Amino acid sequence: MSTDISLRVLSESLGGKVLVRLRNGRMLRGILQGYDQHMNLILEQAEELDDENTSSKQLGTIVVRGDNIIMVSPTIKEKK
Amino acid sequence: MSTDISLRVLSESLGGKVLVRLRNGRMLRGILQGYDQHMNLILEQAEELDDENTSSKQLGTIVVRGDNIIMVSPTIKEKK
Amino acid sequence: MSTDISLRVLSESLGGKVLVRLRNGRMLRGILQGYDQHMNLILEQAEELDDENTSSKQLGTIVVRGDNIIMVSPTIKEKK
Amino acid sequence: MSTDISLRVLSESLGGKVLVRLRNGRMLRGILQGYDQHMNLILEQAEELDDENTSSKQLGTIVVRGDNIIMVSPTIKEKK
Amino acid sequence: MSTDISLRVLSESLGGKVLVRLRNGRMLRGILQGYDQHMNLILEQAEELDDENTSSKQLGTIVVRGDNIIMVSPTIKEKK
Amino acid sequence: MSTDISLRVLSESLGGKVLVRLRNGRMLRGILQGYDQHMNLILEQAEELDDENTSSKQLGTIVVRGDNIIMVSPTIKEKK
Amino acid sequence: MSTDISLRVLSESLGGKVLVRLRNGRMLRGILQGYDQHMNLILEQAEELDDENTSSKQLGTIVVRGDNIIMVSPTIKEKK
Repeated sequence: MSTDISLRVLSESLGGKVLVRLRNGRMLRGILQGYDQHMNLILEQAEELDDENTSSKQLGTIVVRGDNIIMVSPTIKEKK
Repeated sequence: MSTDISLRVLSESLGGKVLVRLRNGRMLRGILQGYDQHMNLILEQAEELDDENTSSKQLGTIVVRGDNIIMVSPTIKEKK
Repeated sequence: MSTDISLRVLSESLGGKVLVRLRNGRMLRGILQGYDQHMNLILEQAEELDDENTSSKQLGTIVVRGDNIIMVSPTIKEKK
Repeated sequence: MSTDISLRVLSESLGGKVLVRLRNGRMLRGILQGYDQHMNLILEQAEELDDENTSSKQLGTIVVRGDNIIMVSPTIKEKK
Repeated sequence: MSTDISLRVLSESLGGKVLVRLRNGRMLRGILQGYDQHMNLILEQAEELDDENTSSKQLGTIVVRGDNIIMVSPTIKEKK
Repeated sequence: MSTDISLRVLSESLGGKVLVRLRNGRMLRGILQGYDQHMNLILEQAEELDDENTSSKQLGTIVVRGDNIIMVSPTIKEKK
Repeated sequence: MSTDISLRVLSESLGGKVLVRLRNGRMLRGILQGYDQHMNLILEQAEELDDENTSSKQLGTIVVRGDNIIMVSPTIKEKK
């Protein structure tokens, strides 16, 4: 099994929307513009979601440190 | 004892359903599609379980960071 | 003193039942089938114990990440 | 995908205002004067924000350790 | 100052009783049978102590992961 | 951007008073006498501050471990 | 600035009394007999202090793991 399996999933998600669950219990949604091997993420048009997954706060472009992330979920996108 | 004993169990679980207990107290279930040496997991058809192990939330495909994982349990699958 | 003193004890416990106390306060019991240098453990017939050390939940085969473990205790086994 | 994707975003933010969310729940705003590969940040005219993102405390120049940071958000600046 | 100052104290404590305070607030006492450079300890005849340092639970032989340990205290032994 | 940007700010603060916010919520003030690449700090005439930034406890010379630090703020000093 | 600035302060404190504040909120006092590059400390005649810095518990000789330490404070000694 390749070492960069999780990076491959992130690679396929570039340009698409992803959901990110953070350790502090918060959920983010944004367009994945980049990532690195620490799972640091660059999200554009990022927004914080409340419990019903509706947007509660606009964050714009953000750099999310990977060590705060529990899971990343690519949302459906056409070109995949 | 081999260094990659835990990876071998994960390897044998590829394509099968696994249960994942997270440090934040939550439980996930999904089809294991990949992993790496950090125990980062790729799960498909993932779902969050409530205390009775019934599905409470559909998550789709997710990347789970290994450092949030307490334990992974392969569930029975035929070809094993 | 050897570097792998803790691994030697684990080695001698292979095939026998061990008790594992986790950082989240839970206790596991199972047959030790493997381990690695991170103290990741493979347990078979694993079960979660309640405070009186009676089984409260069957877990089957599990991979336990070593960084969640406080202590491992081999239980008595004949061939030792 | 480049290893230093998050550093590139920080690089483009140099001289501009950034919002920094910390693990302890606090939010900082300041002019980004520097950073390193640990995401340690140098902020000038830094201020701590309350929940409505209005300034609650002037901090002057600060060095923020990267391992306390959840996310960094560049705010709009002209020359970008 | 030697790098292995703490290991030297542990070395001198081999075969004697030690008190171990854990991060979770618990206290252990047992005969030190081994250790490694991570301060993983092997204790025999280990017991958990309550607040008055009287034994509250017999643990037998245990492997204690060093990263859960706050401090180790050798108790008096003759051959030292 | 240089790797040691945060160390450069600390270097310029040597001999001056700095404010240090710790992860445990406490605030320290003292004269910076030294530091290393882990952001361990040597403070002289250190004091713990209460919420109004008035001194609540004299600590004398202290070594502060860097991994407890959230941020360091140089206070104004003449020779800068 | 030297890498071992904090170790130098510890070196000068050898044989003298030091105060050690731990992450769990406790305070220790003892004679510093040794240390290593992880800031693991060997204290003799160690005692735990209550909030008024009066001794509440005799600990004897202890090995304190450095990663539990917030700060170390040398107390005045003649030969310095």
